[in-house]
Amino acid sequence: MNYAMIFRTMGWMLMFEAGFMAPSALVAAIYREKSAVWLLVSMAVCLLAGLLLKVVSRPKHHRIYAREGAVICAMVWFLYSFFGALPFRLSGYIPDMIDAVFETASGFTTTGASVVANIEALPHWLLFWRSFTHWVGGMGILVFVMAIIPLASGGSTMYLMKAESPGPSVKKMVPKTSQTASLLYKMYIVLTVLQLVILILSRMPVFDAFCITFGTAGTGGFSILNSGCASYTIFQQVVITVFMILFGTNFSVFYLVMTGHIKEVPKVSEAMSYYGIIAAAIVMITVNIHGDYTNIGLAIKDAAFQVGSIITTTGFSTTDFNLWPAFSKWILILLMFIGACAGSTGGGIKVSRVQVVVKAIFKELDSAIHPNDVRKIRYDGKVLDHAVLRGINVFITAYFIVFGISVLLISVDNFGLETNFSAVAATLNNIGPGLADVGPTSTFAGYGPFAICVLIFDMIAGRLEILPVLVLLNPHTWGEGHVLRRVRSRKVRDTSDDDLMMI
Amino acid sequence: MNYAMIFRTMGWMLMFEAGFMAPSALVAAIYREKSAVWLLVSMAVCLLAGLLLKVVSRPKHHRIYAREGAVICAMVWFLYSFFGALPFRLSGYIPDMIDAVFETASGFTTTGASVVANIEALPHWLLFWRSFTHWVGGMGILVFVMAIIPLASGGSTMYLMKAESPGPSVKKMVPKTSQTASLLYKMYIVLTVLQLVILILSRMPVFDAFCITFGTAGTGGFSILNSGCASYTIFQQVVITVFMILFGTNFSVFYLVMTGHIKEVPKVSEAMSYYGIIAAAIVMITVNIHGDYTNIGLAIKDAAFQVGSIITTTGFSTTDFNLWPAFSKWILILLMFIGACAGSTGGGIKVSRVQVVVKAIFKELDSAIHPNDVRKIRYDGKVLDHAVLRGINVFITAYFIVFGISVLLISVDNFGLETNFSAVAATLNNIGPGLADVGPTSTFAGYGPFAICVLIFDMIAGRLEILPVLVLLNPHTWGEGHVLRRVRSRKVRDTSDDDLMMI
Repeated sequence: MNYAMIFRTMGWMLMFEAGFMAPSALVAAIYREKSAVWLLVSMAVCLLAGLLLKVVSRPKHHRIYAREGAVICAMVWFLYSFFGALPFRLSGYIPDMIDAVFETASGFTTTGASVVANIEALPHWLLFWRSFTHWVGGMGILVFVMAIIPLASGGSTMYLMKAESPGPSVKKMVPKTSQTASLLYKMYIVLTVLQLVILILSRMPVFDAFCITFGTAGTGGFSILNSGCASYTIFQQVVITVFMILFGTNFSVFYLVMTGHIKEVPKVSEAMSYYGIIAAAIVMITVNIHGDYTNIGLAIKDAAFQVGSIITTTGFSTTDFNLWPAFSKWILILLMFIGACAGSTGGGIKVSRVQVVVKAIFKELDSAIHPNDVRKIRYDGKVLDHAVLRGINVFITAYFIVFGISVLLISVDNFGLETNFSAVAATLNNIGPGLADVGPTSTFAGYGPFAICVLIFDMIAGRLEILPVLVLLNPHTWGEGHVLRRVRSRKVRDTSDDDLMMI
Repeated sequence: MNYAMIFRTMGWMLMFEAGFMAPSALVAAIYREKSAVWLLVSMAVCLLAGLLLKVVSRPKHHRIYAREGAVICAMVWFLYSFFGALPFRLSGYIPDMIDAVFETASGFTTTGASVVANIEALPHWLLFWRSFTHWVGGMGILVFVMAIIPLASGGSTMYLMKAESPGPSVKKMVPKTSQTASLLYKMYIVLTVLQLVILILSRMPVFDAFCITFGTAGTGGFSILNSGCASYTIFQQVVITVFMILFGTNFSVFYLVMTGHIKEVPKVSEAMSYYGIIAAAIVMITVNIHGDYTNIGLAIKDAAFQVGSIITTTGFSTTDFNLWPAFSKWILILLMFIGACAGSTGGGIKVSRVQVVVKAIFKELDSAIHPNDVRKIRYDGKVLDHAVLRGINVFITAYFIVFGISVLLISVDNFGLETNFSAVAATLNNIGPGLADVGPTSTFAGYGPFAICVLIFDMIAGRLEILPVLVLLNPHTWGEGHVLRRVRSRKVRDTSDDDLMMI
């Protein structure tokens, strides 16, 4: 393991984090908020710590292999959550460090779960930092950096990016990683600016428009009012609904639109299924809740907002859906698990994975009645590669195992089953609010430090799609000699092209 | 589709069901219970309906293919649940037919969930029938019949048996199906008699001993007292605990013991993991609940009884575990999902499947750090076949999809999330009691007819391990021409040896 290169990369990333804090300093200057001195202190700490890591680490060679790539990928998110928590902790607005890390991890992972009961007490610069982490995390921390600096020799940084923002779409569009990264960012920025402009034109306060747009674009869900999004106008709520659904769409769709291939959009079956699920869920919930509304239009609006918010794993709320009937609540829970499209900023299992496993089930049912008939699973017209299917299956089983163990671990705090279950569902799927004691009108502050640590792990595991984080827990990742010996004895070169990666 | 042969087989099976009711008639004679006239009526109905089906169906040929086998397998369980419900309905002890079918399906599938609030009001013959269905269903209805009559030509009834009591163990022991079936039954009967004798020697009333033993052997869980098993002596409770765990053990272990290969028992990794999980769960729950007990021994006894009862999916209770702290309750829920060993009478996902998916995850984690290293999953010393792994993955995803949709469907009755979630967990895993409003001191009677039908489906789907029941819902199973045409166009003979099966 090339530890020196890992430390050096961490150092670089920390210095970038100081840079990410800069826009918040501008906000502090505009609002003349003195508490922002703690922001400057935090930036200095990040810079110094980054420099220190860079100076101390003296790599013998600059090569990093898949193993280092996997470790860097997961570690960066923990690192960012820790150092990004400094403004909250130092300013005293979140007095407990673990809680502050939770809030920051919740930001970067675009979860949107909060431990702050009275958000409106926070200064503008801190609210802005909190929401800005959504926007950075939405596309991926490493992808962000790669979009800005096409990292050195060879450009084979695809491996890092694959681990960070998985799903089929990253590879599809253009062959080169740095090109893909900047292309994704162009679309991301265009959509962000579009939402921002529409919200400002609709007379939403500019500061609110920025924060809400960051929360929508990253499918994060931090709001800046205690009432969530309920106090915005109906038009603004509809705008947010539409953009949440857009940011949960596979970005391939926008690429097709950008390049003039609009006719091919209906062939992106993931996006079509995604819209179909959204439509079905809105109809079912509206039928279920319309009795509580005087106006069917308002019922549809609330149903659509909540469905869009949950399936895209954003987590904004306009109403306390914790009070909805059991049927509607369970639909929301199912949407939490299904999640958005792969290749979007949303979380969850992802629509394309659900599509593939359903196809696999039907294939198996056909095999049961005709055992000798050989069938292949097709997806978007192509025969699905065996490795892809295996990856999906491993992801799903790992997902449910992490889920079950997490609920067990946080249940030491003795909350009810609905609270614990939905707390893990809301963090592992990067949504934000759960149900019962962690519902949209409550916070996660009731959990003790141990449970909070588990939930921080879940948020990052969910954002990176489980396996990259589990790699950190696998003894083989760290057990240098053992693995190498085993690999060598099987005569497999571990410095092959695929395995090797330059930074 | 050879419908005539399906009807004919159904006819035969119905006549057998009349036979299964005969022991209850004996009980009625002993206790001189006049209400048992309805039992005789039910037997007559089964016989006549069976004869009618047999006479009406005039198969052109007697061959049945995999497709017919799959359909027969699933249909028999629905048929048995319906006709087995007649004694409950006709005698008026369960006034609603759908509820009566639920109670019977719960019996045959060895679930043990009940809609009867005051069980002690039922006559002996009906209680006996109720518990006897556990014993029949535990080993499998078709296996039972095959053990008695080695069905006609060729003995290639393995296909039926595979669909009914899946898991690796059925094939392993001896090459011939009928031999395996009767071997399994010998072990089943020896263990049953052993428990019966011990319970009677411990001065449990003979009638109770019979019913409790049937419930233990089938890992069913119907008790015959309103207090469950709480009023039996501590010794009797320990005996029940031990036998529950034995009946949840992979029967290969008993085969090794019977044939004098005791030294090879530790190599049955599924059984070892199963005992390990049980021990770990007992320790964790005891630590969690011992504060509520004056005596640590009693805490261990209750923890062990409940762990044994839930992981084997029996569902007996000695205490209201619904009142346990969240940590212990979630352990029980995890055990509900894990379930017993494959090749036992227990339900759930099965320990061996959990083992395999965990191995698959570790393999994938190793691949993440050394992408070019080729690895195979080994189980009990052998490289795991790709088809087996695929089957496990499809089972698990189908399982969770059925789970999620079932909770949605039953939530129309607007019970709480904990109730709905645990109701499906308790039925799909064939356990019996759930938590909250379907906890060990409650019944399922609160659910309306629609939800009850969903739960009946779940019990049978769980007993047959999902796919055989989903086959009934697959349009391709019924769409004669379509499938045949497709198969032919691919030049795959659908009358090959594997596919063909004689009865």
